[in-house]
Amino acid sequence: MFYYAEPIALLIEELAKLPGVGPKTAQRLAFFLLHVPRNEAVALARAIVDAHDKIRFCSICANLTDADPCRVCGDSRRDRRVICVVAEPRDVVAVEKIREFHGLYHVLHGVLSPLEGIGPGELRIKELLARLGDPQLQEVIIATSPTVEGEATAAHLARLIKPLGVKVTRIAHGLPVGADLEYADQVTLLRALEGRREI
Amino acid sequence: MFYYAEPIALLIEELAKLPGVGPKTAQRLAFFLLHVPRNEAVALARAIVDAHDKIRFCSICANLTDADPCRVCGDSRRDRRVICVVAEPRDVVAVEKIREFHGLYHVLHGVLSPLEGIGPGELRIKELLARLGDPQLQEVIIATSPTVEGEATAAHLARLIKPLGVKVTRIAHGLPVGADLEYADQVTLLRALEGRREI
Repeated sequence: MFYYAEPIALLIEELAKLPGVGPKTAQRLAFFLLHVPRNEAVALARAIVDAHDKIRFCSICANLTDADPCRVCGDSRRDRRVICVVAEPRDVVAVEKIREFHGLYHVLHGVLSPLEGIGPGELRIKELLARLGDPQLQEVIIATSPTVEGEATAAHLARLIKPLGVKVTRIAHGLPVGADLEYADQVTLLRALEGRREI
Repeated sequence: MFYYAEPIALLIEELAKLPGVGPKTAQRLAFFLLHVPRNEAVALARAIVDAHDKIRFCSICANLTDADPCRVCGDSRRDRRVICVVAEPRDVVAVEKIREFHGLYHVLHGVLSPLEGIGPGELRIKELLARLGDPQLQEVIIATSPTVEGEATAAHLARLIKPLGVKVTRIAHGLPVGADLEYADQVTLLRALEGRREI
């Protein structure tokens, strides 16, 4: 019995290890990659290995970086009075995109999740606490997602940080801009009411 | 403003060129690849380039292969009296999997599709016609899909091959095994009736 030639079978097998890629998608991707010009296939292959070889954790904020300290921690124009704590590197990008936050970050690399076996020891919490001794620091903003795990993580961090005399804040919960009040879930609406501000 | 470190940004960019992979999926795949052990990332990268470097078209059947002629065309035990014509290399695998066809293949690399600009010149039809002179050949089975394009391709091939005195057959249309007659579409049901056989 004959299946795919071995280099194709191997490529399909490797692609099928990617998250969300089943055997059919892996096959489709493999044929796509076989049909692009060689330099494009090489560019993807090189990007995969390069990222692996060049990316490490920033020794200050634990974000992924190709230089240590990372470009944020190493930028003297950033406001050292405030640290924004996020769950993942992609959250740093999300906050940077609004162009309104000029402080520093700290990346936890996850949120507390007993079900997935992620306790405080799995997150970069020790590294965050080590940064709190900086006399310039005035505020830690906890910007984990408003999910059960994100809230639990925020509460845990607040319990650890507050006794050290550093102000701890949480990003606001409420209706997303443009949302229709009628379709908001009750918890979000409750939080929006609780967080009301004078105008 | 700070976005991803360049090696990450580059990897996301390359991944986003894959079919069906948008920016969010590319980002997710990139972080997955950053977190796997280096040897796994290298294995994927190598598989991509290896497939490109080792895979070519079989000079007989036009299937993708790492040896020429391919393992089917070069196998003396295969039945040289029949050629099964398919649209894509993956269709060869589908037919091989049933373990009941022992003849040869011919891969067209597509089906006729005027809307996508695919005419007879874009398919491996010339190469198929060149094989019809083999005195051992008795039958050409056209196994393109029962879609509009697949049917048009089958009709076109039949018009070309029949005058050469070679028997041309088409795979049967009908209800898939296990399907419920009630939910069959009318065209399939009509084809199933037309193709009825005495039991």
